Amino acid sequence: MSVSASPTPLLGDRLCENGYECVKILPATNDAHGGVIVDLKEPMDSELFATLLRSSLLHWKKQGKDGVWIKLPIELVNLVETAVKEGFWYHHAEPNYLMLVYWIPKTGCTIPPNASHCVGVGAIVLNDKKEVLVVQEKRGGFHGIGVWKIPTGVVDAGEEIFEAAIREVKEETGIDTEFMEVLAFRHTHNSFFGKSDLSFVCMLRPLSFDIKKQDLEIEAAQWMPFEEFADQPFNQMHEPFKYMIELCLAKVENGYDGFSPRPVSSYFVEELNCLYLNSHDLDNTS
Amino acid sequence: MSVSASPTPLLGDRLCENGYECVKILPATNDAHGGVIVDLKEPMDSELFATLLRSSLLHWKKQGKDGVWIKLPIELVNLVETAVKEGFWYHHAEPNYLMLVYWIPKTGCTIPPNASHCVGVGAIVLNDKKEVLVVQEKRGGFHGIGVWKIPTGVVDAGEEIFEAAIREVKEETGIDTEFMEVLAFRHTHNSFFGKSDLSFVCMLRPLSFDIKKQDLEIEAAQWMPFEEFADQPFNQMHEPFKYMIELCLAKVENGYDGFSPRPVSSYFVEELNCLYLNSHDLDNTS
Repeated sequence: MSVSASPTPLLGDRLCENGYECVKILPATNDAHGGVIVDLKEPMDSELFATLLRSSLLHWKKQGKDGVWIKLPIELVNLVETAVKEGFWYHHAEPNYLMLVYWIPKTGCTIPPNASHCVGVGAIVLNDKKEVLVVQEKRGGFHGIGVWKIPTGVVDAGEEIFEAAIREVKEETGIDTEFMEVLAFRHTHNSFFGKSDLSFVCMLRPLSFDIKKQDLEIEAAQWMPFEEFADQPFNQMHEPFKYMIELCLAKVENGYDGFSPRPVSSYFVEELNCLYLNSHDLDNTS
Repeated sequence: MSVSASPTPLLGDRLCENGYECVKILPATNDAHGGVIVDLKEPMDSELFATLLRSSLLHWKKQGKDGVWIKLPIELVNLVETAVKEGFWYHHAEPNYLMLVYWIPKTGCTIPPNASHCVGVGAIVLNDKKEVLVVQEKRGGFHGIGVWKIPTGVVDAGEEIFEAAIREVKEETGIDTEFMEVLAFRHTHNSFFGKSDLSFVCMLRPLSFDIKKQDLEIEAAQWMPFEEFADQPFNQMHEPFKYMIELCLAKVENGYDGFSPRPVSSYFVEELNCLYLNSHDLDNTS
């Protein structure tokens, strides 16, 4: 589902039926699921908006539409209360807009939920001397407990997991890397306002070695002998971190197979996207 | 970060300093990152809110606070415009509330982004006769193109991937299953209002065999010989689906290893959560 700009006039469409009725309705485009999308961009008085919204809802109901989406830029915040008073509720918000929805039919609402997950990466960068690239952070849960940790960060919407891992390592330590594999991923819940979190443990190969640490978030960065990294009491005491070390050893010493990205073209999405799979096993069998 | 109820009075705290100043501020709790959270629950006049908000911002600035979060239930929609006029912007919204944020310091804002991903599952259920459980849907991208597809669905916030796969198969077809492995996952972008999508291809073992299809979304459901499923032109023509078939064959015939869930306890999160990894490779090496 996409929200596209409407080609219609600022203050609503004039709708004439049978040459008699003549009401104004809000400019809207059809979505692919039987609903309509109103993508308002220009300022409007809230009373005019209320009038247009009521006649629009009647019109869409007659047309047999189901879901109604209204995207209000933050500049049009004066219209939010009106929409809610007409029965709309919030679907999602981003810094610069609020998306409201309404369901016309009496039957069950099938409007899909808002984004449910944040996605993160942790990057294990191991050099030929079996040293791991580690940092200490200036804030957050790891701050002040003396633990050397691997670089971690957030995967942005629209960003590939492998790109995010390479970017975070570069940003925090200045080290260039090549992506190898996702060794594992972790699913946690209630991490941020009731949302869940998927965090991908990635293995990368360093392509440069001189650390230039970022000052804003990173207190210190270094190459640390793997045994010393693994032996930190924190890593030994906490299951996910202990597993991370075991996975890393299994990868280096015993050929553990993780998932690696493979670009695939798609039927439903225009852009190229990635399938992450066990390349070693698949290529050995096909 | 959690949003908790404030124990303070409805219309704001009375704040007395040095025995002289006496201003009212909004009830707020500290978050773990140097900011404050205002969790309004009771109706308030927007002019009173504006006054309280201004004095509160001055107070928090003096205290050296950085991020200010205001959670407004949809019933308090009358206060949204006021908050935006005072410089707040949207962070995220759920059907029944809107979260607004403000950053006090002059330095760069470190407020974390909103959830960025929707998460889905596709469930390959193969029985001993090498038949795969397939459905035809009443709506969506697969509707009307005659393709028999595997059951798919959305992973809700707070739900495990393996639970979602088992649930979707049960809901759509009535079949009970046991989760085996994540064979691969796919990362797509711009799938829904600019958000990204992670979809996990899961393999499950059937524990029952009599199909009772769900009527709301499912047109038809059946056990289909795997070759017939694989030979559908749609599956042969579209890369992600072709890979899904290859992965399934590799799993059944050549021992392809995917990721399986392992419960782990966590340092930062109270609940048990899951690490998905290549159990076969890890257990063979440790």
